[in-house]
Amino acid sequence: MHLMNHQDTICAVATAPGGAIGIIRTSGPAAIEITDRIFCASNKNKLTEQKAYRQVFGHIVHASGEVLDEVLVSIFRAPNSYTGENSTEISCHGSPYILQQVVQLLLQNGCRTAAPGEFTQRAFLNGKMDLSQAEAVADLIASSSAATHRLAMNQMKGGFSKELGALRDQLLHLTSLLELELDFSDHEDLEFADRTELQTLAEKIETTIQTLCNSFSLGNAIKNGVPVAIIGETNTGKSTLLNTLLKEDKAIVSDIHGTTRDVIEDTINIGGTLFRFIDTAGIRQTTDTIENIGIEKTFQKIKQADIILWLIDATQKYNPEKLEADILSRSQGKHLILLINKCDLISETQQESLTRHFSKLGHPLHFISAKTAQHIRELEALLVESAAIPAISQNDLIVTNARHYEALSKAHEAVKRVINDLKLGLSGDFISQDLRECIHHLSDIVGEVSTDSVLQNIFKHFCIGK
Amino acid sequence: MHLMNHQDTICAVATAPGGAIGIIRTSGPAAIEITDRIFCASNKNKLTEQKAYRQVFGHIVHASGEVLDEVLVSIFRAPNSYTGENSTEISCHGSPYILQQVVQLLLQNGCRTAAPGEFTQRAFLNGKMDLSQAEAVADLIASSSAATHRLAMNQMKGGFSKELGALRDQLLHLTSLLELELDFSDHEDLEFADRTELQTLAEKIETTIQTLCNSFSLGNAIKNGVPVAIIGETNTGKSTLLNTLLKEDKAIVSDIHGTTRDVIEDTINIGGTLFRFIDTAGIRQTTDTIENIGIEKTFQKIKQADIILWLIDATQKYNPEKLEADILSRSQGKHLILLINKCDLISETQQESLTRHFSKLGHPLHFISAKTAQHIRELEALLVESAAIPAISQNDLIVTNARHYEALSKAHEAVKRVINDLKLGLSGDFISQDLRECIHHLSDIVGEVSTDSVLQNIFKHFCIGK
Repeated sequence: MHLMNHQDTICAVATAPGGAIGIIRTSGPAAIEITDRIFCASNKNKLTEQKAYRQVFGHIVHASGEVLDEVLVSIFRAPNSYTGENSTEISCHGSPYILQQVVQLLLQNGCRTAAPGEFTQRAFLNGKMDLSQAEAVADLIASSSAATHRLAMNQMKGGFSKELGALRDQLLHLTSLLELELDFSDHEDLEFADRTELQTLAEKIETTIQTLCNSFSLGNAIKNGVPVAIIGETNTGKSTLLNTLLKEDKAIVSDIHGTTRDVIEDTINIGGTLFRFIDTAGIRQTTDTIENIGIEKTFQKIKQADIILWLIDATQKYNPEKLEADILSRSQGKHLILLINKCDLISETQQESLTRHFSKLGHPLHFISAKTAQHIRELEALLVESAAIPAISQNDLIVTNARHYEALSKAHEAVKRVINDLKLGLSGDFISQDLRECIHHLSDIVGEVSTDSVLQNIFKHFCIGK
Repeated sequence: MHLMNHQDTICAVATAPGGAIGIIRTSGPAAIEITDRIFCASNKNKLTEQKAYRQVFGHIVHASGEVLDEVLVSIFRAPNSYTGENSTEISCHGSPYILQQVVQLLLQNGCRTAAPGEFTQRAFLNGKMDLSQAEAVADLIASSSAATHRLAMNQMKGGFSKELGALRDQLLHLTSLLELELDFSDHEDLEFADRTELQTLAEKIETTIQTLCNSFSLGNAIKNGVPVAIIGETNTGKSTLLNTLLKEDKAIVSDIHGTTRDVIEDTINIGGTLFRFIDTAGIRQTTDTIENIGIEKTFQKIKQADIILWLIDATQKYNPEKLEADILSRSQGKHLILLINKCDLISETQQESLTRHFSKLGHPLHFISAKTAQHIRELEALLVESAAIPAISQNDLIVTNARHYEALSKAHEAVKRVINDLKLGLSGDFISQDLRECIHHLSDIVGEVSTDSVLQNIFKHFCIGK
């Protein structure tokens, strides 16, 4: 089914440049033999005669006999390795020159360069892990907080695969009973599968899949950040607020109206919660086409956001008109936070007057100065509170992967059709077809029915050496 | 002698952030026990019961029982480890979050954070290597070319220590004979040490030390780059030439006269030879004090450089006057290359006229365009030819370390005094004193007489984890 040539022995540097230690990995049938060709053990023994899980001290030597480095070589033998193949790890001094030379020597002696994620891809193809576990490896390496780490670890340990496996087993059981009926289709009244029982089970499965699908919004918020849109009229200080929150200058800050036309996204970790900030073009009644596109984009961003920071310039005359109603209606079901910016530049009386107007809108109201960072701490606390990311426990199953979400959504559609088929009293072959489709999509997640192109697409996002 | 507490067990991340694999090292009496406290082996065995040079697969676990990562732990037992102490290496997924958490767990369980170079410092203090070998470890990691790698490797293998050891043995033999005479000082005519033989030996040693001292200029050029000064009047295109050579924009390029006032240094590897470019302020008759300092700096840089690129603007009227004579006299004994820049903007007749004038000066003359990179390849070839770095063989002893050079220079002074003492027929106690000083400086290089402050100064430049 998979076209990849497993007879190749691959090699790659598995550590980032710049450390004290650098590791080069090899994997494939000839991994130990090839490593042995460029290695001279201190005890003069051949690597090929060493036991697995052994570290051997020695030198990497050029064909000329010149020593390239003092190294430790680790030996792993199929199937007891990460990839399930023969493997070695060469631990060198972390000089980029040395690492590059060792790779050159390995290539000259029969290795080829590993593609991104090829070690993990081989682990998957050799049955060391399923596809969702392989994907978790990349998530684990990219994890940058306790929450993302825990989600990746749960997935890598196979909690997700186990849950999906249980669902699939139940679905397969139902399908086989239904298909048994079809084999006896001349006996029209024969029903191996009790329809009421089938209905109950299908509904149970539907609920489970629905729960997993629902968890994606949380999983996505944890992995990619809670989406926050900063909106407001031009020149109210949206870019300044973003910069103050990011504590660095990634957006252009300018005094000229309408400078931020491109949508910039940036993430920031506030109190353990990751936020993805969306800086949008200012909303302004204008004849400028580009600005009008900016307004349209703003409303699109409100749609994508969970939290909306609506920035109002305290020093400018506020004109509610159409805009206020628009924002309020488009923000329904989301966390809308009203921010009166430049609060350091207005009098107490003005502040009171603004409070009177905006407190009527029924959303949290907050006076800040984006420029001087006044009350920014309180805003940050409000953001964390609004995001309300629950603590993730060790066994929580939360979908974080868009590919998984898509497959689960399709499985969900299919199981809903099964329930409907049953309600309509349709014949077993209809029901069986929908059950098979549901099973197919669940199998897709763990990689049992994946095509080469799906695999290529997944592993090309891995780093080299993993 | 050394105040460092060896009872501590240290830990540090030894790989750069961002790779597929991350390594954490521990070293010290409790290294294996502490690692065992946070580790749960798949085969349930204790790490403390495992043999050395073994890799054990398992999990790093929090006190709560939560799994932090799947890891491989390598075990090393004193004295057969890098540091000479009990050690472990924990090979994790390369997530910065995971690495930081593993270090946290190790600290909570009794490790302390390692200082920069502390693993190598311990290796030195435990007699696993001498000081010049320890210094070579840092050079090896920093090596970026075949030549720097080979020099560091020669030094790490102890070739340098062996040569110095042989010299020291000879000096010690002479000293002991001389000091034996002093013990019998009432017998005035007694001479154990034959003065002629002593003279011959001292001269031989002087020659060897002199050769080592001389090699520092080559060693320094290989390690830090052959110093090249780019000089010329303001606005002749010095920064542009540097940028073209560097193929990136590190210096400010501007059309305003006199913009490059700060001296910028940058290195570039041309055909295996490292060059250190010195971009200087333009030379111009001016009343501006800062500019005058610039001219003074230019002459200083000529002094420091091995190769001088003198840039002349082909489009400007050339005024030889005082400047030409100044540059020629200050460049004596160095490689002076005359570059006529902006050659694409002048006629063939102008080119011929310039050739007529400058070819008389007796230095290589070369027409280029820094802006369009015309004839830059030829200039690069000329640079490599002028640098004339010889190929370094596997056993060449070349001093690359300023500390070693300083000690050797002092040893050289001392041995020259010995020769002089002998010529003057001075008594044995004078000669012995100078011999002892020479021995002291040679011992300093391999770290036999080093103080804590010297060690601190050496190892603080290492990276953490080495």
